[in-house]
Amino acid sequence: MEYPSKAIENAVNELANLPGIGKKTALRLALHILKQTEENAEKLGESIITLRKNIRYCDTCFNISDEATCNICSNQRRNKEILCVVEDTKDVIALENTHQFNGLYHVLGGLINPLQGIGPSLLNIDPLIKRISESSIKEVIFAFSANIEGDTTAFYITKKLKPLGVKISSIARGIPVGLDLEFTDEVTLARSILNRTQITASE
Amino acid sequence: MEYPSKAIENAVNELANLPGIGKKTALRLALHILKQTEENAEKLGESIITLRKNIRYCDTCFNISDEATCNICSNQRRNKEILCVVEDTKDVIALENTHQFNGLYHVLGGLINPLQGIGPSLLNIDPLIKRISESSIKEVIFAFSANIEGDTTAFYITKKLKPLGVKISSIARGIPVGLDLEFTDEVTLARSILNRTQITASE
Repeated sequence: MEYPSKAIENAVNELANLPGIGKKTALRLALHILKQTEENAEKLGESIITLRKNIRYCDTCFNISDEATCNICSNQRRNKEILCVVEDTKDVIALENTHQFNGLYHVLGGLINPLQGIGPSLLNIDPLIKRISESSIKEVIFAFSANIEGDTTAFYITKKLKPLGVKISSIARGIPVGLDLEFTDEVTLARSILNRTQITASE
Repeated sequence: MEYPSKAIENAVNELANLPGIGKKTALRLALHILKQTEENAEKLGESIITLRKNIRYCDTCFNISDEATCNICSNQRRNKEILCVVEDTKDVIALENTHQFNGLYHVLGGLINPLQGIGPSLLNIDPLIKRISESSIKEVIFAFSANIEGDTTAFYITKKLKPLGVKISSIARGIPVGLDLEFTDEVTLARSILNRTQITASE
């Protein structure tokens, strides 16, 4: 594709590097930016530069943070005995939005994936073991995606945690709310029968 | 939604202002940017700021340009007797990619749309009339979207151009290549019968 100006070509190429954005969408975005005020375009550009430049991770849980210790780790009202282990920051955000969990988090920064060359040493697993052995944590919850990488990572950490004697659990696998039973795949359906939850009739 | 850091919240809000990008996609993009090198993030941010700051329009055809006269207007090998009138820069790019048109362009900057308060005076129509009356242009082609705004704009300019005695045409409306006849709407089908093209048997 030929572009009418170098500035637009450059912006389109940069925007097209973002995930899920092709050249056509990038051009649409660039033309949209051209219609904005100079101030608004500057705010967008600066926010991207600042984001990467000022990025910091919590020393305790490795979540993205503005300070050396993140809001969640430093919050005195959170339950310091339950720890939820997740892959990424976006999982912390997703879980926080449910307002159902009041414990602490630990961000691994990825899942064990031998095919992509991601071994345990590249993840924040050693700091996790150290953190649990030195603190008052009594229960560890794995909140990983329901795939091979998630299962492998949970298996590996479980083995490492065994000597510490903490309670270990994983978030429930089952039929998503709103999904018809007939459209659920067999593996999910099989797991949801195995891990059925008891219903107690109220008096 | 609550974000773990001010920088990420700010970037997500800015990115979500772009068309077709919601908060969830914006968060995905922000986390992608965090995984890039600081240099790459800076290149993306700078390209957006530079794009808006250094934007310039061709004095002749009002297309986006690096110089006072754009590459197309200053190209001596282009046919200076045919002028294609389009809504926007992206239409110029689309037409250039066909490699079928060797004339000049004129970018209106929009189409007449009374409902949105866009009248002829807000578009580059007066400069278009002036340009045609002062130059050697013999044919004007309208390449607008096939909707009411496109038809209205073509009708308005046609009336204005009448005294100048130039040849006026519009790009063909018909069945898009690859589309089944049965799925074509009636208006398109009706137009495609009215404007049928003659086939001459080769000997």
